[in-house]
Amino acid sequence: MRTHFCGLVDEALIGQSVTLCGWADVARNLGGVCFIDLRDHEGIVQILAEPDQGEVFDVAAKVGYEYCLRVTGTVRARHAVNDRIRSGKVEVVATRIEILNAADTLPFYLHETPGEEARLTYRYLDLRRPEMQRMMRTRTRLVQALRHWLDARGFQDIETPILTKATPEGARDFLVPARMHEGEFYALPQSPQLFKQILMMAGFDRYYQIARCFRDEALRADRQLEFTQLDMEFAWVDEAEVQGTTEAMMRDVFAEVIGVALADPFPRMSWAEAMRRYGSDKPDLRIALELVDVAEAVRGCEFKVFTDAAEDPGGRVAALRIPGGATLSRKQIDEYAAHAAKFGAKGLAYAKLGEDGAVNSPIAKFFAEGDFATLLARAGAQQGDIVFFGAGEYGVVSAFMGALRLKAGKDFGLVENAWRPLWVTDFPMFEWDEEERRYVALHHPFTAPAVDDIADLKANARTAVSRGYDMVLNGNEIGGGSIRIHRSDMQSAVFELLGIGEEEARAKFGFLLDALRFGAPPHGGVAFGIDRIAALMAGTESIRDVIAFPKTTGAQCLMTGAPSPIPDAQLAEVHIRVREKAQDVAGES
Amino acid sequence: MRTHFCGLVDEALIGQSVTLCGWADVARNLGGVCFIDLRDHEGIVQILAEPDQGEVFDVAAKVGYEYCLRVTGTVRARHAVNDRIRSGKVEVVATRIEILNAADTLPFYLHETPGEEARLTYRYLDLRRPEMQRMMRTRTRLVQALRHWLDARGFQDIETPILTKATPEGARDFLVPARMHEGEFYALPQSPQLFKQILMMAGFDRYYQIARCFRDEALRADRQLEFTQLDMEFAWVDEAEVQGTTEAMMRDVFAEVIGVALADPFPRMSWAEAMRRYGSDKPDLRIALELVDVAEAVRGCEFKVFTDAAEDPGGRVAALRIPGGATLSRKQIDEYAAHAAKFGAKGLAYAKLGEDGAVNSPIAKFFAEGDFATLLARAGAQQGDIVFFGAGEYGVVSAFMGALRLKAGKDFGLVENAWRPLWVTDFPMFEWDEEERRYVALHHPFTAPAVDDIADLKANARTAVSRGYDMVLNGNEIGGGSIRIHRSDMQSAVFELLGIGEEEARAKFGFLLDALRFGAPPHGGVAFGIDRIAALMAGTESIRDVIAFPKTTGAQCLMTGAPSPIPDAQLAEVHIRVREKAQDVAGES
Repeated sequence: MRTHFCGLVDEALIGQSVTLCGWADVARNLGGVCFIDLRDHEGIVQILAEPDQGEVFDVAAKVGYEYCLRVTGTVRARHAVNDRIRSGKVEVVATRIEILNAADTLPFYLHETPGEEARLTYRYLDLRRPEMQRMMRTRTRLVQALRHWLDARGFQDIETPILTKATPEGARDFLVPARMHEGEFYALPQSPQLFKQILMMAGFDRYYQIARCFRDEALRADRQLEFTQLDMEFAWVDEAEVQGTTEAMMRDVFAEVIGVALADPFPRMSWAEAMRRYGSDKPDLRIALELVDVAEAVRGCEFKVFTDAAEDPGGRVAALRIPGGATLSRKQIDEYAAHAAKFGAKGLAYAKLGEDGAVNSPIAKFFAEGDFATLLARAGAQQGDIVFFGAGEYGVVSAFMGALRLKAGKDFGLVENAWRPLWVTDFPMFEWDEEERRYVALHHPFTAPAVDDIADLKANARTAVSRGYDMVLNGNEIGGGSIRIHRSDMQSAVFELLGIGEEEARAKFGFLLDALRFGAPPHGGVAFGIDRIAALMAGTESIRDVIAFPKTTGAQCLMTGAPSPIPDAQLAEVHIRVREKAQDVAGES
Repeated sequence: MRTHFCGLVDEALIGQSVTLCGWADVARNLGGVCFIDLRDHEGIVQILAEPDQGEVFDVAAKVGYEYCLRVTGTVRARHAVNDRIRSGKVEVVATRIEILNAADTLPFYLHETPGEEARLTYRYLDLRRPEMQRMMRTRTRLVQALRHWLDARGFQDIETPILTKATPEGARDFLVPARMHEGEFYALPQSPQLFKQILMMAGFDRYYQIARCFRDEALRADRQLEFTQLDMEFAWVDEAEVQGTTEAMMRDVFAEVIGVALADPFPRMSWAEAMRRYGSDKPDLRIALELVDVAEAVRGCEFKVFTDAAEDPGGRVAALRIPGGATLSRKQIDEYAAHAAKFGAKGLAYAKLGEDGAVNSPIAKFFAEGDFATLLARAGAQQGDIVFFGAGEYGVVSAFMGALRLKAGKDFGLVENAWRPLWVTDFPMFEWDEEERRYVALHHPFTAPAVDDIADLKANARTAVSRGYDMVLNGNEIGGGSIRIHRSDMQSAVFELLGIGEEEARAKFGFLLDALRFGAPPHGGVAFGIDRIAALMAGTESIRDVIAFPKTTGAQCLMTGAPSPIPDAQLAEVHIRVREKAQDVAGES
């Protein structure tokens, strides 16, 4: 139907006849000549039809916005050169124009960025916008580069099921009623975790899959019900090999797709160090600011919030110095306090150091003469700075001070224009859930502990470190994984520590426990969030820009109208009914 | 953890020290020397430990079947050479053996082919069998070759949603209750058909996806609830380009993956010709037998079954000659009749021609002298043959005679050892459903008719031909597609012919009809069945051999136990309940 792509017509074709297909991006009649900007996925070229061309001109005069055309014509040099596009030095004088399809008036112009609702309702028009074409192509290139890298290195692409077993109490499972098994359900996988471990026990050596995963939870601003991960697993490995291989992959892929050189090797940082210095397990290293522990410097003061936290072994008193922050107004400081409150802060102390050396701080009065200066010095404060102080439970203080660090980085333009990856390692094996009086797994219950000895693990569970690791890029956790437990006795011990009884373990993970008894090899792996990595590469904040048909935060597809009601007769075929409201959850208790 | 793969250790490494990881395929103590066949995904190598090696020998003596080992040793030439394996000229004298994991007694030996139930229950052991490793690797290589071919040619890999809109009356839809939308449901896609068409309207030029599809129906012998297709769509194309591109892809991929040269070009055959000659819309061209229409030769006979069919414009009288078939016993002929009955035959007439020229046929008596000989001559019968005759409705006769052709091909060893692809084209646009008194679409309602004129289509709907096409290989429909309707008026006309009212069309496909109004380009595509193609390439009859975790024909995963019951409280969270049996379907009417 065509000889060339619109966007690729250039000087090399001058004098030649070409046939092009595309959309009329702009069509206008200027001084009796019809100009049409014809657009395809590669870009735009200018078509013109002159009055003396008879029928061609008549057809051109009828062309409207986003009409679908096939044009034959001769390429010639153009008077008014447009340097911004590849075809800008030429134009095509039409000898034939065929209207393949007309277009009604569009709900928005493609050159504008319409509102989110219009974009998602008319996604087929939104995606025609060159900016969306560019971002979607970045995603395609990312996935392609990853696959080619892995294919060249013996990784085997293996599909795992979408219709899987529901995990009892799997509160985030999507359920699918089974037609052939009355009253029973499949579930959509939250990840292929157990299947990929089983594949290693099944004798595959290196596995990968670009896998669709599902999580049925209230959507936060930038989450989707279904998401895509690059899922990988290796047999006979330790963490050095998994990390070394996958960071090499990321270096090559970032270089290929967006021409960016990532650090070689990626820095490693323990979870404890990341929390201490950055108040985050996914530190954004583009921001040079760091938290400083100042418990020692506040012990003698009369501010109980500080002294209580300083004396509590599980407490923390931390300072964050913001260079130039003394310019913050009372109102702006309140905004920082409100931001900290979202992350659990009960209050936010501060001290401003004027350019004249004057200290302005509501808490200075609690300190003996000189002690406050010592505290500020400990925090590294200089003239013109503001210092924020947080005190309380270690995790809470870290979280809100870490959040302030990010906000200050953005507000004060302190975010370096760079790509800063790192590995965060040595995560705690367990978190103690005070309410439930039991341990919960920080990664998942298949993550191996750093110690091999079961008695040692049991004796020191609270401080035990796991063999998990996260890949972090510019403050985003883009991947996470671990060396897995491959011994059945260790897996049972971890289940026990997590309060998962033998019967429950059998019901939930019986096949895994069985598989571990038949010569399971040491193995480990990682999963990377493709949506997020694609968004970072495309330079957009929203993963919806790199997903062809995303759902809203209200979990709806505005284009197709999913989800939708289903006639009761059809539900009967799969043995379910919609609950009457009166009989709802309360009725169950 | 290792320096080499077990299966790749060869003479080039003699004298060197290697470290290997794998499973003890065989471990035996012969004349005081321990021999271990160590196996990984690449194959086997022989390890030995001699008594004078002390600790190494002691460990080796403990090794059991399928123990997971790490072995360091020195490669040396072997006395008893095993030519069947790459490592057969060498062995490794162990200097260190580490038991990474022991194994309980396995439920079956990996060298046997266990029963289907055991294979699926202990899938992790079944997959360790070298035959399964080989077949699964064929699938991986197929998918990889397809992707690389498409990536090199500008096809863009784009993911479409798994949680989509249910089609009203979508009897085969899997339903997924929506947590955030009480009483509403998502559905899993039967294919990405509408999404890929929308992508063309959205300005993408060439799309592909290795897509998971779902069909909730009673499983036939070799179907799965979820299956994988290579889904493709092209903008600005006609059928010649789709067919030319995809058959070139298949030629390259078959050559690369299994070293087979497919015909260039593939033969094309109209649907009408395929039905006439082979009684099938997916003819197996490896079998030289053809159906012969003999209506003219039976008109004067007294066998009413024949004469009725011969006089009916919608009838057919067909003969199938099987060379050498006169050897069939009465019992064997009955088996053929029973086989034909499965495909709708009410009876099966036959004639045997003895080597002596004698004719043995229950229907000879209905023919005037000479007329039966004329009939047999028309069917091409020769001495020693059997000829089967079928008479009745055209489609039914074609179906059962086509089935007999396949059975005869197998029974008489007439299936050529070859790869015989073809395109079947010019399908009828509609089938007339006599019971419902309406047309149904033979492909799907988005397939373009061969005529562009709506009035023409409406006037000749019963004989209208579509722009659909199937790729057939050795009797398997491995792919199917069409040029789609891209004009909104034509789409409405086809919906109308199919008895889909405006309101219903709006409810089901409103977004498609909208998209067609905004400059939809001409487009078309195709989808290939990856599971079937992988099975053909791997040389297995069952697609379950090329799916890592398949379900049984009973729609269960024996390994994980899916599907399974779900506590009512969890169902309440997604606003559904299991129907009480008393209130079942009957209660709805």
